[in-house]
Amino acid sequence: MDKVNIAVVGATGMVGKEIIDILQQRQLPIDELRLLASKKSAGTVVSFKSETLKVQELTEQSFEGIDIALFSAGGSISERFAPIAVKAGAVVVDNTSFFRMHDNVPLVVPEVNGHVIKQHKGIIANPNCSTAQLVMALKPIHDYATIKRLVISTYQSVSGAGKEAVMELETHSRYLMAGKDAEPKEFLHPMPFNVIPQIDVFEDNGYTKEEMKMINETQKILESSIAISATAVRVPVFVSHAEAVNIETQKPVDVATFKQLLADFPGVQVLDDPAENEYPTPRSAAGQDDVFVGRIRQDQSHPNTLDCWVVADNLRKGAALNAVQIAEELVKQRVAVG
Amino acid sequence: MDKVNIAVVGATGMVGKEIIDILQQRQLPIDELRLLASKKSAGTVVSFKSETLKVQELTEQSFEGIDIALFSAGGSISERFAPIAVKAGAVVVDNTSFFRMHDNVPLVVPEVNGHVIKQHKGIIANPNCSTAQLVMALKPIHDYATIKRLVISTYQSVSGAGKEAVMELETHSRYLMAGKDAEPKEFLHPMPFNVIPQIDVFEDNGYTKEEMKMINETQKILESSIAISATAVRVPVFVSHAEAVNIETQKPVDVATFKQLLADFPGVQVLDDPAENEYPTPRSAAGQDDVFVGRIRQDQSHPNTLDCWVVADNLRKGAALNAVQIAEELVKQRVAVG
Repeated sequence: MDKVNIAVVGATGMVGKEIIDILQQRQLPIDELRLLASKKSAGTVVSFKSETLKVQELTEQSFEGIDIALFSAGGSISERFAPIAVKAGAVVVDNTSFFRMHDNVPLVVPEVNGHVIKQHKGIIANPNCSTAQLVMALKPIHDYATIKRLVISTYQSVSGAGKEAVMELETHSRYLMAGKDAEPKEFLHPMPFNVIPQIDVFEDNGYTKEEMKMINETQKILESSIAISATAVRVPVFVSHAEAVNIETQKPVDVATFKQLLADFPGVQVLDDPAENEYPTPRSAAGQDDVFVGRIRQDQSHPNTLDCWVVADNLRKGAALNAVQIAEELVKQRVAVG
Repeated sequence: MDKVNIAVVGATGMVGKEIIDILQQRQLPIDELRLLASKKSAGTVVSFKSETLKVQELTEQSFEGIDIALFSAGGSISERFAPIAVKAGAVVVDNTSFFRMHDNVPLVVPEVNGHVIKQHKGIIANPNCSTAQLVMALKPIHDYATIKRLVISTYQSVSGAGKEAVMELETHSRYLMAGKDAEPKEFLHPMPFNVIPQIDVFEDNGYTKEEMKMINETQKILESSIAISATAVRVPVFVSHAEAVNIETQKPVDVATFKQLLADFPGVQVLDDPAENEYPTPRSAAGQDDVFVGRIRQDQSHPNTLDCWVVADNLRKGAALNAVQIAEELVKQRVAVG
């Protein structure tokens, strides 16, 4: 397999670091790994396999010779630099929300809709973290029984809000336990020992942008106009998002069948044994690649409806891992074509 | 108004302490306040208004001369001692789950179904904390448009699990931030910076007992066979429970009407201004008597459906306050009759 040149834009952020970590663990054949970030972070030294790499400042000239550019530096950086990277000959895998709903940009979770990768015009979008894990749990039952309606409540960790948010949860938790109060900066309300039912800004319909992302992106990836309502809530957890999901299907699905469908799906693990108090939690899923599903039960109050609990590491399957998997697919397809 | 003799069973527990606190703040005319607890806690000294009271050991003789006994010492204590208290001439207001679903025991949230108090045969049950706040938010819309179906996800604080659980969350959070690990004792999985989708034991249908309590008690209090599914989740929060609730009604209700119905209902406050990032959180509701509702929006994916976010202090409206309110109603009705 030919080696590829990879750029990571936003290399010093939470997702960027996770991408570098995952690239070290997996088999993508890399010739050059170019780490890019803002001027402020340029010069940071990162060890990668046996090499020592220096983070470079992102400029319009950064993409020369790059085959695949993985962007995780915020929507405005993607808006400006993704087209430049494409013009320089790279395929962009973008982890921000900027291009996700664009008609000619495939929105991809490889296990779910990898077939749309080849439709790309230079840019491929990575879904929102809470969407990525959700569609992994939904795809097998959707194929089997067609999902009609979803009601979702999320329990999302602070790492989804960036490294300053992680630091604030830690330091402000310490302050609080020492009897000191501190004004929240990264959150709209105090985060330690609290939950906040707002992620991102509000839209006119009363939903937050995060909730609308889950709704719109899930419909785009599953290629279906499923009825969806979502409530996205930040919880004082460092890593992993959890989701309570009520699923109504067109035809009945029993619990055993749903478990089997999930167990057969790549990248999903069923962790569900009430007798042993077994189900996934954010801390048990942190650092893992798979999406974990538990608390699977029939909603006995409504026909053709199941409840479940979906947990995954939001930095991995929700972001970095999914982006690297898309890059791997690109390399595979290039080889297949070439 | 005649003065009454009140007993508090479980006076040194989290709810018991809150009851004493609330009795100090409110106007119930008390002659004697008798504080009862296990042998282990007997002898504890509590100040009440200008008096100093000593906690006594609960025995079969504890209820002589008592008019109203407020029980919060666990189901097995209520099972054994509530009938003894009734035989001694007291009316029991029981905060445990033991009698709640018994046919001849009224299950009461005074603002919602205070009219059933007078049907009591000596024992009146206080609902589960997550049910009490839920029915406060549901009663006005149920009266107006008849609720058909509910999908609920909870975010429940550790104070619902007792004072040892509160201490474990605090000490284990400290340990974790100091890099030390600790085996959970009060929880089935580590609680700090985690969420646990299990409260109480599992039933055969895959729901937990806590979830089934919400379902059954809500139906009993609202006197309606509403279809309900619930997922009850423990979050690392000290006080207050939050609930994301999807409400389907028989006829359409717009957001403005729902807000007005809630605002007009005693004990409920609407806290809902997206432009100001305003909605209730557990920390903002802690120590308050009211039930707070925010994030009110139309579920645009489904007809006649609304979403909202309900938060209340689980030790107050969820337990101690509601019990004291029932006692107040008993005193009022006794006066009215007498």
